[in-house]
Amino acid sequence: MSLTDKLNWRYATKKFDSTKKIAADKLSTLLDAIQLSPSSYGLQHYRVIVVENAEVREKLKAAAYNQVQLTDASHVIVFAAETNINEEFVHEYIDHVAETRGVPRESLKGFEDVVVGSVNGRTPEQLLTWAQKQAYIALGILLSAASELEIDNCPMEGFDAAKFDEILGLKEKGLTATVIATVGYRASDDPYAGLVKVRRPKEELFIHI
Amino acid sequence: MSLTDKLNWRYATKKFDSTKKIAADKLSTLLDAIQLSPSSYGLQHYRVIVVENAEVREKLKAAAYNQVQLTDASHVIVFAAETNINEEFVHEYIDHVAETRGVPRESLKGFEDVVVGSVNGRTPEQLLTWAQKQAYIALGILLSAASELEIDNCPMEGFDAAKFDEILGLKEKGLTATVIATVGYRASDDPYAGLVKVRRPKEELFIHI
Repeated sequence: MSLTDKLNWRYATKKFDSTKKIAADKLSTLLDAIQLSPSSYGLQHYRVIVVENAEVREKLKAAAYNQVQLTDASHVIVFAAETNINEEFVHEYIDHVAETRGVPRESLKGFEDVVVGSVNGRTPEQLLTWAQKQAYIALGILLSAASELEIDNCPMEGFDAAKFDEILGLKEKGLTATVIATVGYRASDDPYAGLVKVRRPKEELFIHI
Repeated sequence: MSLTDKLNWRYATKKFDSTKKIAADKLSTLLDAIQLSPSSYGLQHYRVIVVENAEVREKLKAAAYNQVQLTDASHVIVFAAETNINEEFVHEYIDHVAETRGVPRESLKGFEDVVVGSVNGRTPEQLLTWAQKQAYIALGILLSAASELEIDNCPMEGFDAAKFDEILGLKEKGLTATVIATVGYRASDDPYAGLVKVRRPKEELFIHI
């Protein structure tokens, strides 16, 4: 199957088979895909919490309108945006670029100035939205990677971010929960699996110029 | 190559080979992937402008800090968020769901009420950000699909959205340019192709609970 076939196969899984776990090598591939996702200037202004612990997941479920995917999926993946994007964050990133590529730090000064300018030109609210958008790119790539491996998945926005931050201890890490993906294997009796996919028709969705 | 290998192969292409065009069947696959991308409640609160016209692309380049990808890539894909998300938008969406699935419209009333409540509970600014985030999921999936086909790509936020809206006539369509992807084939002498990929190390990016 091509990726398009896999995307046709996927659906927002409402009921997972709680007895089926994602194998370690496949989970590792999903995390590779997240890690390889591009982001603005390469900053990767988010971290990703991979939750398996059953007790923690019960609490997350209660903070997510009791949606059963939180406890029944194989894993809960929480994308959490960085809330402290500032010059220091950029400096550390540039240090990392210089080290990884083995280039003099001074050679990156022009790039660093651009990124610092971009950070300083945004309000705290704009910085957060910017970080969150990058997490959504990674979410899209995760959904592709999972579907390619025939791992079912359900992206979810319906949760109380403040409660998630508290349960996962995110605030003290300078993070805030942004969007979730639950991943695993569909239950054989999930009625949503059989529904016809609804999408905007191409002639409406696309404008060709 | 697996999708992970392809994501390792990809990079933010700075210089495209302007003589190489994406074949029609491959472009169609990319648009399929965008169309199949999930979104909150399935609303797909964005449209996608596929720009090939050379004259229009010259104008877009001028509104994007003269970045050459705008004119040298095979295609410029502009994700434009819907700016008029309201009850009417939801009603039309529910009509479409009922028609596509062949179910009585009344059977969707509960779902419709939830979506309308979600729309009415957001400020205009929050509605826009919400729509934009959904476009970023589609961007992530497009980048996966392009990489799978070994089509080079570069997501771009560096452009003047107001000027893009004017050039593409988006405002009158109730749209605003949100993020771009340029897609095509790398020039053989793009110096960025050879750079070591920089990513946050896994032990920093991921938190396991």
